[in-house]
Amino acid sequence: MKNLLFAIVGLLLVCSHSVLAGRNVILIIGDGMDDKQISIARNYLVGARGKLTLDHMPVRGVAQVLTVTEQGQPVYVADSANSATSIATGEITSRGRIATSPGSDKSLPTIVEILEAQGYKTGLVATSSVTDATPASFVAHINMRYCENPETIHGAKMGPVTLPDCPSYTKANGGPGSISEQIAASEVDVVLGGGAKHFNITAENSEHSVAELARRNGYHVIESREDLASAPADKKLLGLFSPSTMPVRLQGEGAREAEAPKPSWANQLHPYLGSVKQPVPMNCEPNPAFKDMPSLKQMTETALARLHNDQGFFLMVESASIDKQSHERKPCGSIGELAQLNEALDSALAYAEDNPETLVLVTADHAQAAQMIPAESLFSKFPIPVYSPGKIALLRTPEGALLAVNYATNNFAYEEHTGANVAVFANREGIGRVPTMLTQPELFALMRDYIVQAEPSNMH
Amino acid sequence: MKNLLFAIVGLLLVCSHSVLAGRNVILIIGDGMDDKQISIARNYLVGARGKLTLDHMPVRGVAQVLTVTEQGQPVYVADSANSATSIATGEITSRGRIATSPGSDKSLPTIVEILEAQGYKTGLVATSSVTDATPASFVAHINMRYCENPETIHGAKMGPVTLPDCPSYTKANGGPGSISEQIAASEVDVVLGGGAKHFNITAENSEHSVAELARRNGYHVIESREDLASAPADKKLLGLFSPSTMPVRLQGEGAREAEAPKPSWANQLHPYLGSVKQPVPMNCEPNPAFKDMPSLKQMTETALARLHNDQGFFLMVESASIDKQSHERKPCGSIGELAQLNEALDSALAYAEDNPETLVLVTADHAQAAQMIPAESLFSKFPIPVYSPGKIALLRTPEGALLAVNYATNNFAYEEHTGANVAVFANREGIGRVPTMLTQPELFALMRDYIVQAEPSNMH
Repeated sequence: MKNLLFAIVGLLLVCSHSVLAGRNVILIIGDGMDDKQISIARNYLVGARGKLTLDHMPVRGVAQVLTVTEQGQPVYVADSANSATSIATGEITSRGRIATSPGSDKSLPTIVEILEAQGYKTGLVATSSVTDATPASFVAHINMRYCENPETIHGAKMGPVTLPDCPSYTKANGGPGSISEQIAASEVDVVLGGGAKHFNITAENSEHSVAELARRNGYHVIESREDLASAPADKKLLGLFSPSTMPVRLQGEGAREAEAPKPSWANQLHPYLGSVKQPVPMNCEPNPAFKDMPSLKQMTETALARLHNDQGFFLMVESASIDKQSHERKPCGSIGELAQLNEALDSALAYAEDNPETLVLVTADHAQAAQMIPAESLFSKFPIPVYSPGKIALLRTPEGALLAVNYATNNFAYEEHTGANVAVFANREGIGRVPTMLTQPELFALMRDYIVQAEPSNMH
Repeated sequence: MKNLLFAIVGLLLVCSHSVLAGRNVILIIGDGMDDKQISIARNYLVGARGKLTLDHMPVRGVAQVLTVTEQGQPVYVADSANSATSIATGEITSRGRIATSPGSDKSLPTIVEILEAQGYKTGLVATSSVTDATPASFVAHINMRYCENPETIHGAKMGPVTLPDCPSYTKANGGPGSISEQIAASEVDVVLGGGAKHFNITAENSEHSVAELARRNGYHVIESREDLASAPADKKLLGLFSPSTMPVRLQGEGAREAEAPKPSWANQLHPYLGSVKQPVPMNCEPNPAFKDMPSLKQMTETALARLHNDQGFFLMVESASIDKQSHERKPCGSIGELAQLNEALDSALAYAEDNPETLVLVTADHAQAAQMIPAESLFSKFPIPVYSPGKIALLRTPEGALLAVNYATNNFAYEEHTGANVAVFANREGIGRVPTMLTQPELFALMRDYIVQAEPSNMH
């Protein structure tokens, strides 16, 4: 009889636990982290036969990246703004848009806002500026990603070009202001990354900086790694560790990037003639500018410690510069940031070990330009110079081989994104929940339903 | 008592069935079918939000592609010879090798040979020449893929180049002869594809053609689609439907391929000046040369009908020209061949529905050059011409958008392969058997163990 009583009490405890205990989602986004980038980093970091932390995850599928024009027609290559909007809101939008609808500027509720309204804690961690497209799409609403602060909302300057402004979003016009102002006014519990310059600027209609508005909204604002540990636990935390994108961990030897092969004079006359000088092989080396930065792992662990609670939380962690370094044709930079992502994932998985109702997801927002090509051409037997029409880096790998990374999507200062479905990884909480294929917007409902413990929505 | 007896008999029947019934593997290889190629084909064939047959498969993982030099050092980009050797034999080898070991020319036993020796039926279907690297690696052993026939074994000519010969493999030197001669002497039950020219040639040390040697070895040899249906069931079948690679299903409008953007004179003086003329957009259209060819689906169904037996079989089906058309910068060609693969997969899945102990696997051997880039550059706001340094095709898709495919791995007549892990799909027989990640050589033991109903080998 006593045993039966114990059994019933035990059953009740188990049931109440499974119904009421808080659930957490840690979403890790590798910006531009397609399978090519993963393969390049794997070869360099752990060797061709090695496995990254990513590779050990028990669930692996793919997400279809979906983008439309303002008129709703399909577009086959995304940017981080529209793809992060897909993940954050479940809606498909156009390039450049931050959680707003194509054509109509409707604000799309984000998973962060929806969960906050239900009392869940939320956090955003990124190695980019926290105002950059990926983190911004989880907390802000604006029709142009470059309207990051009260100045650039009037049109950001990029070299010779003034990018589109966001007049209807200014406070003067009754809008919520720029992205940094929207973050300062937000209820996100932890925001960590770069982007101090977007906050150390006078807010619209105010004598105060955007950072000061954040303080008045309850944020403890820090700008150095040393201040991470001492931040008061009872306030929201805004950490801004660099003026814009945080410096990356690795760089090419002597800060070299991919370079154009140099055909001889004769080869320029006719492709069957002459010879070509390929870029000199190089190692990757530590980037000196990284040394004062908190690592992505450190920021992730800080966020996890602050978000840990009984009801559950949502944390988005972005390794931003896999993409940014690929735009700039810097393979070592991308490799180091993919290593940072794997280390942050180690921390997320360790947290999930201790807190089993934690779904850890890793995905990318879109594919990128970097291509691994043969260090020795498949056609090297032919008596003519064979070489990339773009830029190429030849990396000496720790396992003693040459890894050739080709960048050749355009002739501009920055490479293009590319189009391909991207990987979706999950820890064992994803088994039976994360299908082998889904669309990027379907990640939104999958994460929300997991946290609020709703029946999964039908995948549309 | 009678009921108990029935139950016991029933149980015995079930047990004997599960132990003794034959198991089949249908391995479908998309040559060069990386996730970019799949995404390009998906967009064109079923739209950005559509799903291919591939996408519906319940198991999806990736395979690490592994290649070494003759000395055993890692190489990061494979060719079809070494990667097919990985899949067929479980061993890692160097580029160009057909089921032989790097450095030492040791013949590596293939899954086809191992299963044949145990009495299983086997088949090889390809849209390439049946002597090409992928099918050859399952049945032949030679140190250079281009030694396809008794002439090219002395050094194949490719334009201005004589490729390496295979002197130690000639019959005069006690070897097994060229690839076509090895196929003619083989015990593979069904061999279907292109490559008649490699058989309609006098065999070494013989008055007869290689095809005649095949006949004397029990093959019924056919060279047209019409003869498929009437082939006698009691003989081995060798179908050779074109002189070399079979013509592909789709081509660009007017047989156009990707073309170089044409910068204006001023732009050639300075990248900030002038303008650029992009290639005119095009549709894909049927390739007239395809009309007399059996489809990959038809060849697959023929092979399945002939291989169907109580003990079990192994069938390899290759859609070869996803790769070959990508080498030639012909995106419509690759798309059509990926459609052919999906249709052959439909047939394989239908067979597996009727014959549940059939493992259907789909994978690729290596990644390829084709990249989807934005049809409108991410940097189109900048007042300078932005364009690919390579070749580009702008496809009009049936859903009314423009899909831009970029080829820019080299300046040669044929693009390079690229390096990335490739997808592995399986039907429900793969659940619990096909991990989310494995190395390409591990596919060999996985397939063999499934068919012979052994305990799975440890994945090394």
